[in-house]
Amino acid sequence: MLATKHQNTIDNAVKANHERRFYSQYPEHPKAYGEAAAASGMTSYQQLLNQPFDRLLQTGSNERVGEEVSPYTLENLGITYPSFTVEELVAQAGAAGRQWANTPVSNRADILVETLERVKGLFFEIAYATMHTTGQSFMMSFQASGPHANDRALEAIAMGYEELHRFPAEQRWEKPMGKVTLQLQKTFKAVPRGIGLVIGCSTFPVWNSLPGIYADLVTGNPVIVKPHPKAVLPIALVISAIQQVLHENGFDPHLCQLAADSSAQPLTTALCEHPRITLIDYTGGSSFGDYVESLRGKTVFTEKAGVNSVILDSVKDVDAVVQNLAFAVCLYSGQMCTAPQNFFIPEQGIATAAGNLGFNETAQQIRDAIAALVNNPKMGAGTLGAVQNDVTLQRAQDAARLGGKVLLQGGPVPNEEFSKARMCSPTVLEVTSADHNIYEKELFGPVILLVKTKNTAHSIQLARQMAEQHGAITCAAYTTDPVVKEKIAEEMNSVFTPVSFNFTGLIWVNQHAAFSDFHVTGGNPAGNASFTNQEFIVKRFVWVGNREVVSD
Amino acid sequence: MLATKHQNTIDNAVKANHERRFYSQYPEHPKAYGEAAAASGMTSYQQLLNQPFDRLLQTGSNERVGEEVSPYTLENLGITYPSFTVEELVAQAGAAGRQWANTPVSNRADILVETLERVKGLFFEIAYATMHTTGQSFMMSFQASGPHANDRALEAIAMGYEELHRFPAEQRWEKPMGKVTLQLQKTFKAVPRGIGLVIGCSTFPVWNSLPGIYADLVTGNPVIVKPHPKAVLPIALVISAIQQVLHENGFDPHLCQLAADSSAQPLTTALCEHPRITLIDYTGGSSFGDYVESLRGKTVFTEKAGVNSVILDSVKDVDAVVQNLAFAVCLYSGQMCTAPQNFFIPEQGIATAAGNLGFNETAQQIRDAIAALVNNPKMGAGTLGAVQNDVTLQRAQDAARLGGKVLLQGGPVPNEEFSKARMCSPTVLEVTSADHNIYEKELFGPVILLVKTKNTAHSIQLARQMAEQHGAITCAAYTTDPVVKEKIAEEMNSVFTPVSFNFTGLIWVNQHAAFSDFHVTGGNPAGNASFTNQEFIVKRFVWVGNREVVSD
Repeated sequence: MLATKHQNTIDNAVKANHERRFYSQYPEHPKAYGEAAAASGMTSYQQLLNQPFDRLLQTGSNERVGEEVSPYTLENLGITYPSFTVEELVAQAGAAGRQWANTPVSNRADILVETLERVKGLFFEIAYATMHTTGQSFMMSFQASGPHANDRALEAIAMGYEELHRFPAEQRWEKPMGKVTLQLQKTFKAVPRGIGLVIGCSTFPVWNSLPGIYADLVTGNPVIVKPHPKAVLPIALVISAIQQVLHENGFDPHLCQLAADSSAQPLTTALCEHPRITLIDYTGGSSFGDYVESLRGKTVFTEKAGVNSVILDSVKDVDAVVQNLAFAVCLYSGQMCTAPQNFFIPEQGIATAAGNLGFNETAQQIRDAIAALVNNPKMGAGTLGAVQNDVTLQRAQDAARLGGKVLLQGGPVPNEEFSKARMCSPTVLEVTSADHNIYEKELFGPVILLVKTKNTAHSIQLARQMAEQHGAITCAAYTTDPVVKEKIAEEMNSVFTPVSFNFTGLIWVNQHAAFSDFHVTGGNPAGNASFTNQEFIVKRFVWVGNREVVSD
Repeated sequence: MLATKHQNTIDNAVKANHERRFYSQYPEHPKAYGEAAAASGMTSYQQLLNQPFDRLLQTGSNERVGEEVSPYTLENLGITYPSFTVEELVAQAGAAGRQWANTPVSNRADILVETLERVKGLFFEIAYATMHTTGQSFMMSFQASGPHANDRALEAIAMGYEELHRFPAEQRWEKPMGKVTLQLQKTFKAVPRGIGLVIGCSTFPVWNSLPGIYADLVTGNPVIVKPHPKAVLPIALVISAIQQVLHENGFDPHLCQLAADSSAQPLTTALCEHPRITLIDYTGGSSFGDYVESLRGKTVFTEKAGVNSVILDSVKDVDAVVQNLAFAVCLYSGQMCTAPQNFFIPEQGIATAAGNLGFNETAQQIRDAIAALVNNPKMGAGTLGAVQNDVTLQRAQDAARLGGKVLLQGGPVPNEEFSKARMCSPTVLEVTSADHNIYEKELFGPVILLVKTKNTAHSIQLARQMAEQHGAITCAAYTTDPVVKEKIAEEMNSVFTPVSFNFTGLIWVNQHAAFSDFHVTGGNPAGNASFTNQEFIVKRFVWVGNREVVSD
């Protein structure tokens, strides 16, 4: 048993969760991990290609699956993973769970931090695996699947550690009853809910899955991880590290299992509906997410689709604003759940420090900033990354057919490193506020809509309505007027949508920082859960108290 | 504004919630409230009879409803309450909510404690109102609807106060980026979920409703209270006190509304399904409870029916045990959700300090202890109270038809004070472990089943199965063997059922103490919520964070 090797890390993370200042356990810059790490990570990644993946400690499979294709090379990775039946997965999880449930949370947390340290050694491998399954740039792949995901995992561990220590394991209860005192010895246990299932997505296979995995584990539940069949390798590497650390510490590695499946024979529904699966974390499209939320007798945590707004009212420096927004739009080709989509701009334009800027001029500046970024040979390809799949590519290429006026037509982007990369630059459409049917849907990928409104009050009303009816994970707003700012905050917050005001420079609305920003609020249709508030933790276990009369 | 008049009370309650020692803000003994209080409470209660109830500050009603009948006198109380349409109630709640949502939680908590102090002045009136609607004895009416309910309300206020202070309202986030530091000003708000609805039951109209009412209010949500039409007066008195204190402090009394309805024209379903009602607390039968839990887009807290077990393995003093159990069975004629129903006894009997006691002898002792209590002229009527309604009475009178062997036939009990009281002493039936169809249902009221099992392991298996499949709120177990004790705890806790071991003397399995015992765990079919764990609080609001770039 590791005892309290990582107590200091846990204590600091608990404190950071409360304070919500900037905090990070895992530095986000690749250079922090040594000179040689990148090259050796690349070599390790390449050695995984065209091989059966053999690092898992899951036993008993005779079948293998694998269908990953790099969005950069369009080649099959050729990696296969062991596959299991739902009954095998559930039985193994159930058997592994008992010892874990009876392990004190301090020990569980310590072992889980040790798994993160083991994952740290794989950051570069995981980065290349993420790049060649999701289409993210190398830098985003490294940060999102590496240090940022580990930080969010640590955040969940710390929240669990704190919540499970909330009540004493034993307490003497002494009630004065006149001349006598009634005495009971009480015990309080946080009993894990059951077996967890974490369903991953194809664009953020690690970042979106780690909070649920670690929240399940720290609260004592075994977890089965069902990745998207096109993005298995990044999370398979993480799970292999978790399994190894569990095994080394005398625990059953089946506490955290990979449930790889195929597009032809998916396991997801059967897993969701298995009576012993009581906790489900889901990231993905809204229609399957709504199905998961509708399951009776399950505790469900979802992140689904949303329609994110930008409200433009008034700015100090319009160049800084449009450059910031252009980057937010181009980053990973709009395939982030936090990417802005609907830009609400008043028909009379916006106020700037240099005077009023008309609607057409504002739209033109946004369009030009995006075009400039896309066409910047040092920035374009690296910011856009690749498009994860052909469906998204097709939708982006056909965006002009949605309606409205095409201000910028997306198309191929040259990529010096990967000539076959699946790419499409953003399409910018101008629509009117009457075009609800166009802008009330999530247009996942590189498509944005500039919506002409009557005025800022109208913009706020529409942004609020979109968030309330269709969900929103972010809202960017630009205003120099404190009254307007207060109004935007009140209206968007009332539909449980956070607002990022006046972002310029090296910070973008797409980014949510561990230990400080709640990712998704859980209050609107974009999802019912939040990384990582108390609800994300406390719904995974049940407080049960026993009592005994103290004999004299 | 009261500022921090009750800060000390709140701080002590927060501490008590953590420690889970004995703690009480409101003494449970009537004598603690002064010599004159009982008589003046009786007078006030009598003045309410046969009158329109006029203490509410709700406006705009032209209709009145009222159909309460005393289980002691079988006479109609003759009290009518103003009635409102669902749209009126929801509109008033929505209008009242805005100011409350923007009031700091410290002020909300302070005002809410002040309402409890006001309720304290009505304890005796509420006691008589409870007695003559529920059929509880005077002492239970006083304690359950008075100090015990107030303590549970304070527990919820304190949990909300702590949770809403968990994160800072403002924080500066400073991220080092090489030569520059990125600075964001962040704000964190706990945004209330919407409008709450609390649906009461006819047996514990105050105790079971106050936690939901106060949890909604402390987290910033207005609340509509829909009592059982046969038990309105006790909670109407509480609501009148809440409304008066809100009004005196400049808040809209419609933050907490009474939604009285009639058996002929119930409002419950229409309230539940109104889109602006987003939080529902429900106490009552399982079939309506299952419906409430199935509603999409609502956050629901339920306490439904359960089948509570007693596991008899071995005892030190059999007389002390059967006396304790007899009292637990007779208390309020088995109409407590915590009352024991199924007594699992091994066919070879139980071990006692005086040697083995056979099954028949054990059964006989339980039967005799109940008969002795019922027939004790100083104890019987007062312990049993009255039966709340005719359906329960009929079921109790017909219990022998359920099957099995009748060890004790329930029937009328003389009541010196109320000659017409609706009463029925407990029926004791002996059944076999094969009689699932008899013992797997909740038999609400004065009926218990002695189930003959193969051995204690079999008893545990059946008790566990009942809790898992049909729900359980309590389990009483008697064993002198530490290994058996551990086994019972593990098995019952695994189905989220707390165990009370070896209760004798002045403590009964039916009792759950505020600040220490979680009432219902929320983990089995008896209910999905718990008084008062964190989940009971944190699901009522949403953390939303805004960010702004700090300008130089």
